Amino acid sequence: MYELIEELYPICRSITGNGVRQTLERISQRVPLQIHEVPSGTQVFDWTVPREWNIEEAFIDDADGNRLIDFANHNLHVVSYSVPVDKVCTWDELKTHLHTLPDHPDWIPYRTSYYKDNWGFCLAHRDLDRFKAGPFRVCIRSSLTNGSLTYGETVIPGATDREVLFFNHVCHPSLCNDNLSGNAVLAELASRLRERQPRLTYRFVWAPGTIGSISWLSRNQAVVPKIHAGLVAVLLGDAGPFHYKRTRTGAEEIDRVVEFVLAEQGVATKLRDFSPYGYDERQFNSPGIAAPVGRLTRTPNGEYEQYHSSADNLDFVQPDYLEESLRVLERVVTVLEGNVSYRNTAPHCEPQLGKRGLYGSTGGTQPKKREHAMLWILSFSDTQHSLLEISARSGIDFDVVRAAADDLLAAGLLEPCT
Amino acid sequence: MYELIEELYPICRSITGNGVRQTLERISQRVPLQIHEVPSGTQVFDWTVPREWNIEEAFIDDADGNRLIDFANHNLHVVSYSVPVDKVCTWDELKTHLHTLPDHPDWIPYRTSYYKDNWGFCLAHRDLDRFKAGPFRVCIRSSLTNGSLTYGETVIPGATDREVLFFNHVCHPSLCNDNLSGNAVLAELASRLRERQPRLTYRFVWAPGTIGSISWLSRNQAVVPKIHAGLVAVLLGDAGPFHYKRTRTGAEEIDRVVEFVLAEQGVATKLRDFSPYGYDERQFNSPGIAAPVGRLTRTPNGEYEQYHSSADNLDFVQPDYLEESLRVLERVVTVLEGNVSYRNTAPHCEPQLGKRGLYGSTGGTQPKKREHAMLWILSFSDTQHSLLEISARSGIDFDVVRAAADDLLAAGLLEPCT
Amino acid sequence: MYELIEELYPICRSITGNGVRQTLERISQRVPLQIHEVPSGTQVFDWTVPREWNIEEAFIDDADGNRLIDFANHNLHVVSYSVPVDKVCTWDELKTHLHTLPDHPDWIPYRTSYYKDNWGFCLAHRDLDRFKAGPFRVCIRSSLTNGSLTYGETVIPGATDREVLFFNHVCHPSLCNDNLSGNAVLAELASRLRERQPRLTYRFVWAPGTIGSISWLSRNQAVVPKIHAGLVAVLLGDAGPFHYKRTRTGAEEIDRVVEFVLAEQGVATKLRDFSPYGYDERQFNSPGIAAPVGRLTRTPNGEYEQYHSSADNLDFVQPDYLEESLRVLERVVTVLEGNVSYRNTAPHCEPQLGKRGLYGSTGGTQPKKREHAMLWILSFSDTQHSLLEISARSGIDFDVVRAAADDLLAAGLLEPCT
Repeated sequence: MYELIEELYPICRSITGNGVRQTLERISQRVPLQIHEVPSGTQVFDWTVPREWNIEEAFIDDADGNRLIDFANHNLHVVSYSVPVDKVCTWDELKTHLHTLPDHPDWIPYRTSYYKDNWGFCLAHRDLDRFKAGPFRVCIRSSLTNGSLTYGETVIPGATDREVLFFNHVCHPSLCNDNLSGNAVLAELASRLRERQPRLTYRFVWAPGTIGSISWLSRNQAVVPKIHAGLVAVLLGDAGPFHYKRTRTGAEEIDRVVEFVLAEQGVATKLRDFSPYGYDERQFNSPGIAAPVGRLTRTPNGEYEQYHSSADNLDFVQPDYLEESLRVLERVVTVLEGNVSYRNTAPHCEPQLGKRGLYGSTGGTQPKKREHAMLWILSFSDTQHSLLEISARSGIDFDVVRAAADDLLAAGLLEPCT
Repeated sequence: MYELIEELYPICRSITGNGVRQTLERISQRVPLQIHEVPSGTQVFDWTVPREWNIEEAFIDDADGNRLIDFANHNLHVVSYSVPVDKVCTWDELKTHLHTLPDHPDWIPYRTSYYKDNWGFCLAHRDLDRFKAGPFRVCIRSSLTNGSLTYGETVIPGATDREVLFFNHVCHPSLCNDNLSGNAVLAELASRLRERQPRLTYRFVWAPGTIGSISWLSRNQAVVPKIHAGLVAVLLGDAGPFHYKRTRTGAEEIDRVVEFVLAEQGVATKLRDFSPYGYDERQFNSPGIAAPVGRLTRTPNGEYEQYHSSADNLDFVQPDYLEESLRVLERVVTVLEGNVSYRNTAPHCEPQLGKRGLYGSTGGTQPKKREHAMLWILSFSDTQHSLLEISARSGIDFDVVRAAADDLLAAGLLEPCT
Repeated sequence: MYELIEELYPICRSITGNGVRQTLERISQRVPLQIHEVPSGTQVFDWTVPREWNIEEAFIDDADGNRLIDFANHNLHVVSYSVPVDKVCTWDELKTHLHTLPDHPDWIPYRTSYYKDNWGFCLAHRDLDRFKAGPFRVCIRSSLTNGSLTYGETVIPGATDREVLFFNHVCHPSLCNDNLSGNAVLAELASRLRERQPRLTYRFVWAPGTIGSISWLSRNQAVVPKIHAGLVAVLLGDAGPFHYKRTRTGAEEIDRVVEFVLAEQGVATKLRDFSPYGYDERQFNSPGIAAPVGRLTRTPNGEYEQYHSSADNLDFVQPDYLEESLRVLERVVTVLEGNVSYRNTAPHCEPQLGKRGLYGSTGGTQPKKREHAMLWILSFSDTQHSLLEISARSGIDFDVVRAAADDLLAAGLLEPCT
């Protein structure tokens, strides 16, 4: 995962353009993706897919021809979606187009201007010293043309068409935690899932933030009702505690499962109710979509100092944290796979476990844990309780409950609820 | 308000009679009332409107002709609804008709005998000393005749016929907190509301306690289903904390609104669940009526020493407390007016606020409070959440949420649920 | 009750056989029972009624003819349902058939082997010293033949056919708390109830554990929907605190009533949620039966050292504890009898209690407790609240609420909900 991040780090991504295409191509080498292009001007719900932005070169020179800022050195130097410009201007004009972080004089901020024609440069505050009286030559060789918005997805079909969606954004340029960590962890998770025969169908989407999820939802309205559980899984490479942000209702299976897994795994955890700002969970939880999609991050957006700056770099994310995040997500998948609600097929009194070889035949001894789990499952498999609920209620480990359910299934004592 | 109380204080009110009429006439000078007369003998649900009681004169003289008690000095001296009497009697007979407060020897108690023919006098315990051996001449020149029960009401029509009811009782004689404080505060509130064009329709009723609300309900059964929220608002002039007594279910909009306002205003507050004793909220919450009517008082009935005695006088209520009570009730009205549930008209993903001038166009900056409020409203305007619930859930001030909703309404992004 | 326990103690009971018949005969002398026989081989849901087991004699002799163990001394000496055996065997073979309690060297354990053909002896660990080199003669003169399973029941009809079920097991041999205490307490409770004209119908069942309740349920499926409340009432003779184990939903009337009574009676109490192990509550709460049956014990099974050993004897249970258990159960019956939901027949405003002689006629005095109770009942008798809920909500004693409801019933102000 860390290697993929290193590979993707130099690419200049935005919400459209070749940076996204290159990124999806590299991910596709790990897990084959279907690539979709949505033409500029396409109406997607209340929004319109914007023109495609690409950039070749950008710099500011002083009157003596010294290059003060060069996009070639760091792709955060240019405000994303800057319109092309090539002119000489005074300091007074130029300074309104410069962005710095005075509190972190060495860091370059990350800025965008997607929906308003504008241009700008970002730089380390310290480097303002290099700007003398002017005039300055400002040059951005960018293009804003009719093209398309690009996203990639892969579907791993399961025994049922009920879907689990993992969504992450790919629109940030050289920023590692936000968003490359999510891109890499989900690529690895998808790659591992392809080797399984899952019960549920898994869908992974890599798309630009906001306009990407809106475009995807607009084109996949028939998929929405099949989304049984989902996660926006991003910002997974830093040292911070896991933050799970609940779905809008806070009462979905994905809420129960993620909260269970985080507690079970003993990792540092903070739980938050849904709020309508953040990442693409905003779109999935809008009242007209209402898909049960939560969000899993480590430290959330805006809550670490390096956020949206050049300090969110290859030092800030670490392999160990990526591994831990992957482990949590894999366990979420395992629990979702196993968390079925059953109907007891012999619901009148207890079925006789002994004659099926499922129970000790000598009374008076303490029944073992798996036998206990069988009794709990039989008692609560009234179609109203899932195995996770039975595990929570009985205090018996989920894996023991799952194994006991398998024994009962094999004996014909359970059938899954559809 | 305090002036109105001074004006009404000397009048001898009871559940029927000229005292009520004079009181309603004075209130009508502040806010025009429609006056209703319900004839004695009228069946009102399980009750019968009683004969009308009036009184001209009452006194006790001793054997030497000394006047020991004179109704002219204080109208609490006579038990309300005393039958006429004019006779000479011994101390042994008389003493069974005298009421005092031994723990407060200077205070005259307030007593009534509405539904049992009886007569009696109330006096300061200290004044019992003036009663020597007897015999005594006892005279009450009262009348109990077929007449009517009187109540007054005013309706301030709103854009919708859903009603907010403010009810208070006008049956107590010279007692200031109970009931003149409520009479005056509601007169002022109604007078101010007449200058507005409210969304909801407001109805104010001044009526005798118990038999008055029963009579009103009996004659206004068609109004009951329109009552969207209501308050019995009485005992509002003392220094005590606000006591809100919830509706029978405790889960009505008026419960949420009053609890919100009391917390928001930072006034001393105690919340109580419904109980079937108290004032006219008893009738509104009876199972056959089930109107969502709570009760707002400061110190409740029976919980201050001066209650139902001559010490509930013009010193006990103070203009500042009346003003504070009015402010709370005005805020209740403001929140009720503003607390609408909406439907997001662009519910699939977030609508694009920027193109409507409702949002900053540069990413990466912290959206402002009103912008946050807009996102919360759009997210939860699924017809299931009112603005007050959205304010509580988001932690954003109600007024900010209300203003943001107005912006969204103007942009066509919301429509009210009917 | 203690005398009945003394009488029943020597009998060798098992899940079938003459021991159960003799037991039911003795109980029948206190309260007439209907005796049912279910033939061996009968299919009862997932189970089959087993062969009937009886035993005449059992012993182990050593090579010198010394009798090492003799069933005649204690009927716990033989593993219940032991197949007949008469042979000479070595110590190595014999020892796999011997059961002791090393931690309690003086106590004989209680063991069964109902559903697997086997034989065995139980003895005090200390007595193992008497077993020398062998060989040993082992003799069990038992029979396993087609016969029947026996249970007894009595129904005390009430004004309504809604039933309260008291169930207890009668399959344990010489063990006093488990199960003779329950047998005796329920016999006394049934005997007392026969002298009443109850509102509800009461059914008492004495049956073997597990296979007995399964057989009863299999043959009484038409009764199940009539079970309004039920208790498995066993282990009621020791000094321990009461343990109430809730029904599977935990939200049934029996749950509320038992929890209320235990709190009201001020006895030491522990409440537990349902779990699918224990006694016959397992069968009643299985998802296909779902009868609202809780369980009342003092110290539960397996939680006292003497459990399932010869130390659960006539010293372990005491008359005082039996009396206290009976008192609690009688109070449960009283509250169930009285806990009706009513409809207020004059629901529009308060009915006038005074004219019906139910209320003081002089205002201003504190209404008394029963009057308060009447107001609470009238206010909440909207068919949704039972008297027990009204008692809890008002904080007024259940008996006062019940008496007030009787006054209101007599006045025609209430009618029971069907």
